[in-house]
Amino acid sequence: MTDNLITRTPSAYDYPLLIKNLFTAPAVSNPHQTIVYRDLQRFTYADFTQRVCRLANALTAIGVKAGDTVAVMDWDSHRYLECFYAVPMLGAVLHTVNIRLSAEQIIYTIDHAEDDYILVNEEFLPLLEQIKGRIDTVKSYILLQDEQKQVETSLPLAGEYEVLLNQATDGFDFPDFDENTRATTFYTTGTTGMPKGVYFSHRQLVLHTLAGMAALGSVASQGRLHQKDVYMPITPMFHVHAWGLPYIATALGIKQVYPGKYLPEMLLKLIDSEKVTFSHCVPTILHLLMSHPLFKQIDLSGWKVLIGGAALPKAMCQAARARGIDIYSGYGMSETCPVLTLAHVTTEELSSEEDLEVRCKTGRPLPLVDLRIVDEQMQDIPADGQSVGEIVVRSPWLTQGYLKDQRNSETLWRGSYLHTGDVANRDQHNYIKITDRIKDVIKIGGEWISSLEVEDFLAAHPDVVETAVIGLPDPKWGEKPVALVVKKEGTGITEKELLNYIRGFVDKGLISKQIVLLKIEFVASIARTSVGKTDKKLLREQYQQ
Amino acid sequence: MTDNLITRTPSAYDYPLLIKNLFTAPAVSNPHQTIVYRDLQRFTYADFTQRVCRLANALTAIGVKAGDTVAVMDWDSHRYLECFYAVPMLGAVLHTVNIRLSAEQIIYTIDHAEDDYILVNEEFLPLLEQIKGRIDTVKSYILLQDEQKQVETSLPLAGEYEVLLNQATDGFDFPDFDENTRATTFYTTGTTGMPKGVYFSHRQLVLHTLAGMAALGSVASQGRLHQKDVYMPITPMFHVHAWGLPYIATALGIKQVYPGKYLPEMLLKLIDSEKVTFSHCVPTILHLLMSHPLFKQIDLSGWKVLIGGAALPKAMCQAARARGIDIYSGYGMSETCPVLTLAHVTTEELSSEEDLEVRCKTGRPLPLVDLRIVDEQMQDIPADGQSVGEIVVRSPWLTQGYLKDQRNSETLWRGSYLHTGDVANRDQHNYIKITDRIKDVIKIGGEWISSLEVEDFLAAHPDVVETAVIGLPDPKWGEKPVALVVKKEGTGITEKELLNYIRGFVDKGLISKQIVLLKIEFVASIARTSVGKTDKKLLREQYQQ
Repeated sequence: MTDNLITRTPSAYDYPLLIKNLFTAPAVSNPHQTIVYRDLQRFTYADFTQRVCRLANALTAIGVKAGDTVAVMDWDSHRYLECFYAVPMLGAVLHTVNIRLSAEQIIYTIDHAEDDYILVNEEFLPLLEQIKGRIDTVKSYILLQDEQKQVETSLPLAGEYEVLLNQATDGFDFPDFDENTRATTFYTTGTTGMPKGVYFSHRQLVLHTLAGMAALGSVASQGRLHQKDVYMPITPMFHVHAWGLPYIATALGIKQVYPGKYLPEMLLKLIDSEKVTFSHCVPTILHLLMSHPLFKQIDLSGWKVLIGGAALPKAMCQAARARGIDIYSGYGMSETCPVLTLAHVTTEELSSEEDLEVRCKTGRPLPLVDLRIVDEQMQDIPADGQSVGEIVVRSPWLTQGYLKDQRNSETLWRGSYLHTGDVANRDQHNYIKITDRIKDVIKIGGEWISSLEVEDFLAAHPDVVETAVIGLPDPKWGEKPVALVVKKEGTGITEKELLNYIRGFVDKGLISKQIVLLKIEFVASIARTSVGKTDKKLLREQYQQ
Repeated sequence: MTDNLITRTPSAYDYPLLIKNLFTAPAVSNPHQTIVYRDLQRFTYADFTQRVCRLANALTAIGVKAGDTVAVMDWDSHRYLECFYAVPMLGAVLHTVNIRLSAEQIIYTIDHAEDDYILVNEEFLPLLEQIKGRIDTVKSYILLQDEQKQVETSLPLAGEYEVLLNQATDGFDFPDFDENTRATTFYTTGTTGMPKGVYFSHRQLVLHTLAGMAALGSVASQGRLHQKDVYMPITPMFHVHAWGLPYIATALGIKQVYPGKYLPEMLLKLIDSEKVTFSHCVPTILHLLMSHPLFKQIDLSGWKVLIGGAALPKAMCQAARARGIDIYSGYGMSETCPVLTLAHVTTEELSSEEDLEVRCKTGRPLPLVDLRIVDEQMQDIPADGQSVGEIVVRSPWLTQGYLKDQRNSETLWRGSYLHTGDVANRDQHNYIKITDRIKDVIKIGGEWISSLEVEDFLAAHPDVVETAVIGLPDPKWGEKPVALVVKKEGTGITEKELLNYIRGFVDKGLISKQIVLLKIEFVASIARTSVGKTDKKLLREQYQQ
């Protein structure tokens, strides 16, 4: 083997997978292509290249060097896109701060990531003022404004972004370095505890970009993303690099639209005026857009929308299809850069019901994603569309762990696979469907039952307001299911009636027989976390006693 | 920087860019998709996976181990595709022998590559018999046959391919190893001297595959290559992995057709019966197909043909377009894996003349290809569609040199760039057009004149039969152009008349003024090399004296 190994120590022919090697070509091929910021500004790719170089010069001038961490606190903007390139290309780490976190959590992430510099939208100055004394590492701040006007602040400002760019010189000779150099970091928001940091290298981002281009471009005969598209993210740029799409869109050299803060009216107007053809978002955001009066008035046929973050409800899919929207699902998580799977159109002809089914599943793995669905012994579950297991993955773009958190990193990576904590089945065509989070699955006598599915059936009952299904330890079965049910005011529904109702779904083969062990507890309310999710951890603790 | 570097020593989260990591997914997602061999055999992707594992077991049984070199001498076949995967996935090197070379050259390449095993089509047994005593390294041979029948041979046969596969066990646990391990090697055929060996690693092939998928899928709104396509190569698999397309087609999980030897009738029948939609070839082969009577009888609309190896003539492009063929050019060479550029459809609307122009140029660089056109001082030439320079490239999939040939490797790699030896211009849209080989360019007073262009104009004169234009050393100008002309029998054309004719093109701005230095020499014939190309090296030597 050794005499067979090609050397890769830096040399003439070494060409590392660096973000800078995705940067030059688009502007050379498409210098006049545009990048739009809200209804405020419009740049060409040639401008973009020049601005990234000026930003690199400006950052260097204020002291940023390779190995530093540079944070950004902004809504989706052309500035953010420029940082996506300039910061990592300097050899520094881009920390995309989740500005939707609480002030406490934001301090925690800035402190934990050891940010050296922060580029901050004026909107978040009051927040930073408030926590200023508690951030030790930050050397200076750059102000981000849509309109240049004086601000009062006691923070050590190095200057305003546009002013600094105007003062900076053109051109920058971005250095070559090891492709495994860290490029970005950001924090996941679990339901409990402080956010956990994940991180990605240049190599990982370049490979994610290439595989994403390959999958989006060539898997479907329609060409899901190509040079004639117009791209606008509706997943924030601070959230897993807006799913990596800004890198993909730039590499393709297509027109891009950055909408600032997500205001439904602004988003819909931009889709209309800029002729946006490709976006991605979570179902909640799409629901907001669909509920807005403007939604009915604009032409949305041909708008391609990739849904992730949560399952795409069939009703939403149907409503979007009725408006001519090419809507479909993908799957991934902060720990995975994020994209792992995309819902493709198969080579088979599908009936409209099958087509709907495929669009709402989370699709098939991207090239280079080794995705398995396994039981607790790491054995693959059958591809029968019924059996469930945990999704575990290998791929060249997964975080190597949580930043400075050995304990959680070891839970994440076990047996050479990243454990997603998501429970899913796969059908004979290899379409994957997420059914639950593993911590919410109820394991009865070796069989896994999705608490979410049982909740869905219970919630459909007219006398049920809300419900949470949890598993409690049981000496015989391992776990036994308990449904906490808030019933409708004035209804006389009994445990027995609800159990009979559930048994109907068992008879139809929709729930496993083991659910007959279900106990119903009528409660006044169900505990929720700060972000509004059912707090199953707390519920399990409470009812275990 | 050091504390910023993510470690990549083999570990749980390391996922190397190995061919095996492109291998599993297609069969999992598309188990029923077909791979066709001529009109003889038909396999599914599930069969393919099983056969690759059995081949790995069979090769291991006869002694093949990591680091060995395994050669294949075959026409385009499903067997060849299986070797594309099984051999490198064992950690061995696949040597794709150019069976069109002379016997002497074939011995040279087998010997130079130090082949340990050869899989040989029965058709080439007589050739190997003949040179047997002169090949030292080969331990044994595997026979490739379309129909199993007894053969007489004195070569040490380990068995027949299908028999060995039948005897082999299912399943193979392909090992992980360093992604920079050599995967393939083959020999380029220059006009002079012995062939030179190039070589590619797993990493290089995986990245070439991903970038190829990205470029072919998403650059054009039509989706140049996608899941509904049917692929058939018409560039041999021994020639730069059939331009890498078999790896791309397999990764996409599409139907593939392997046509054996290139017989025009068989090719056209397969296109028709298997509904082939995507192929690639050199202009000469397409010309052969277009001249065949069947060509007019079958439906070719929607057939996508990528042309490389030589410029796509406009007349051929037009004739193909008239038949509904989506024809366009690419550029690359054996040293570059090979694909560097592809002709895209721009986002602009093009007139039919502009469209023709773009299809015949060689396109724009793929993602991760840093392609420059430079003068002798490595300065970029202007993108004006006129100025010419040499194409130099960096990319993650270029050969690191010629196998065991330090001297030529150093000529290939200079100033951190691979020097292609091709002369080209680029227009304002970054479309590249190859105009000449650098060794055939005539450098007059610092200006480069394409000998090919001048030859084209001269050859268009009714009294000229053939011509070769060369540059001879000149103390004042550096070089001076000389045109060797074979004139039509009986014509009285003079040097002066021909020079006036050429001056007409100078006046139209089609040739540089420096051509006025041209001397015409009428000759009886023009020296050619063994492969029929004008032997300019010899001509320069002869006329220099």
